Amino acid sequence: MGEGMPTMLYDHGAVPICRAERGGRVESVHLGHAVVVGPDGVREAWGDPSAAIFPRSSCKMFQALPMLEAGLDPGPERLALACASHDGAAIHTGRVGAWMRDLGLSDDDFRCGAHEPKDRAARDALIRSGEGPRQVHNNCSGKHAGFLAMTKHLGAGPDYVDPGHPLQRAVRAAFEEVTGEESPGYGIDGCSAPNFVCTLEGLARGAMRFATAREGDARGRAMIAAREAMMRHPDLVAGEGRACTVLMRATSEPVALKTGAEGVFLAILPGRGLGVAVKAADGATRAAESAVAEILVRLGALDPAHPGARAFRDPVQRNWRGIETGRIAPAL
Amino acid sequence: MGEGMPTMLYDHGAVPICRAERGGRVESVHLGHAVVVGPDGVREAWGDPSAAIFPRSSCKMFQALPMLEAGLDPGPERLALACASHDGAAIHTGRVGAWMRDLGLSDDDFRCGAHEPKDRAARDALIRSGEGPRQVHNNCSGKHAGFLAMTKHLGAGPDYVDPGHPLQRAVRAAFEEVTGEESPGYGIDGCSAPNFVCTLEGLARGAMRFATAREGDARGRAMIAAREAMMRHPDLVAGEGRACTVLMRATSEPVALKTGAEGVFLAILPGRGLGVAVKAADGATRAAESAVAEILVRLGALDPAHPGARAFRDPVQRNWRGIETGRIAPAL
Repeated sequence: MGEGMPTMLYDHGAVPICRAERGGRVESVHLGHAVVVGPDGVREAWGDPSAAIFPRSSCKMFQALPMLEAGLDPGPERLALACASHDGAAIHTGRVGAWMRDLGLSDDDFRCGAHEPKDRAARDALIRSGEGPRQVHNNCSGKHAGFLAMTKHLGAGPDYVDPGHPLQRAVRAAFEEVTGEESPGYGIDGCSAPNFVCTLEGLARGAMRFATAREGDARGRAMIAAREAMMRHPDLVAGEGRACTVLMRATSEPVALKTGAEGVFLAILPGRGLGVAVKAADGATRAAESAVAEILVRLGALDPAHPGARAFRDPVQRNWRGIETGRIAPAL
Repeated sequence: MGEGMPTMLYDHGAVPICRAERGGRVESVHLGHAVVVGPDGVREAWGDPSAAIFPRSSCKMFQALPMLEAGLDPGPERLALACASHDGAAIHTGRVGAWMRDLGLSDDDFRCGAHEPKDRAARDALIRSGEGPRQVHNNCSGKHAGFLAMTKHLGAGPDYVDPGHPLQRAVRAAFEEVTGEESPGYGIDGCSAPNFVCTLEGLARGAMRFATAREGDARGRAMIAAREAMMRHPDLVAGEGRACTVLMRATSEPVALKTGAEGVFLAILPGRGLGVAVKAADGATRAAESAVAEILVRLGALDPAHPGARAFRDPVQRNWRGIETGRIAPAL
């Protein structure tokens, strides 16, 4: 953890990935890095694909591999939730809660912490009930239910987010194999799990491996199961109105998409055998969303005129009275 | 509005202003511009102080000048609210609502639009009541009450946010005089009022003029009234836990501070006759907050060990279980 000097992202030649415009002028600019990887290596890159990043929640499908490769099959809905950063809507918390009950576990067994659901209806219902949020409302609770399923399978101790826990050692091994890199270290994520460092290219390489997976071995079957679960249940991977959900519904071919905090986005394109990774150097979600949508358009997997594309690639910005004030403009 | 080509902020040599670190590594980097202006001109600058920006809410005290110079005296509490981006807590909405009633106006006379209060208690009470937010909850409602007071004084029409309205023409004139620049245009702000473009140096020059104002004329008296009202009522300018409020309470000398959307911050230092302006090029609030606090520390107006300084200059980042995950590190 924290070996050596901090990586200086801005020394890595980050380039403009999108602009926020107001009144026809540029108000803010987002710099970042992006890369498209195929089986033969880097197809296209913006900025520096060797920049070291925390993939954050974008790599949840990597973290699900030990569970799947051990032969645990939660089914597509729970698997989509294991790969999700969900809104805490009833469709999410109901399914995660049922999974926990099936495991014989309760909300207290989570180690992700509690926060308010992003879903407005769920949030308002919780506030009206007078109850505080529970850990099942945490956007990572599906991943943690998967972690707990694997922990139970391993017969390991309850502190499954400890980097030395057998589960996290297995996650690190899978992460390094999939990215093709030895991780130089980790940070603690918002949900308390270790989040391993990789290069942006390594993250896209992992996505490419999910895109090109074959049924021939346990890893290939696990990768296919994860990407198919995500593509089948876009509403479980995030929530109504969220980028992952909206863009997965908008693409003209099946694509698995996953956001990560601090401006990360990952795309798995099975039809083309490609993996994509984006990192906004400043950590801005709006920039990563716009850039991944722009790359999907460039690859021919997303119609820029589709309302779902418009909502994230180049969204019109409106104020509290609905008046158009500007737009986000792709700049790759 | 939108004359000419968009200004390219990233061509202006933005420099790192702070970093977000996780596990001892840099996770994200914010670039930006900052400048300290005294009566004799620029004292110190980072990046390019000639960058054209939208000052957004950081210039609310400029927008209050026509009302004050016309002889309207709302008193310090209402004047602080006219210069505020408030949280919609009861201390804010109660006072703004009373001001509106004194003007013989109702919530429908606002043109700022409605949004949920940021203040948690006010938000939860509203949700439990089953009522939607009203325009008085808008963080700009105090500014708009001031706009309406001046509109009434002018005997002008109800659409006081129209750029051709006598109020907005007066605001533009005051803005250009205070910044010392002819504004090249405007955008529509989140609250529907026109927001005039200036350089970052122009914004800091305006702040310096508030810092060095004398009682000798109407403008000087207006500037002193506005800055003194802000410094006397930091809780009305933003809200509990917010940067403006916390930092104004933390400084070792009276300072008036004001945030603006998209990473803008302004500081008025009457004891030193200085004005400060910050713009995070990517629009990040956390970056502008860290940078303005860092500049206050460098100027000797803020003890870096004060809990209020720690909360914004170099805050420890914690996750949902309270575990330390990293920090924001100043990089000016």
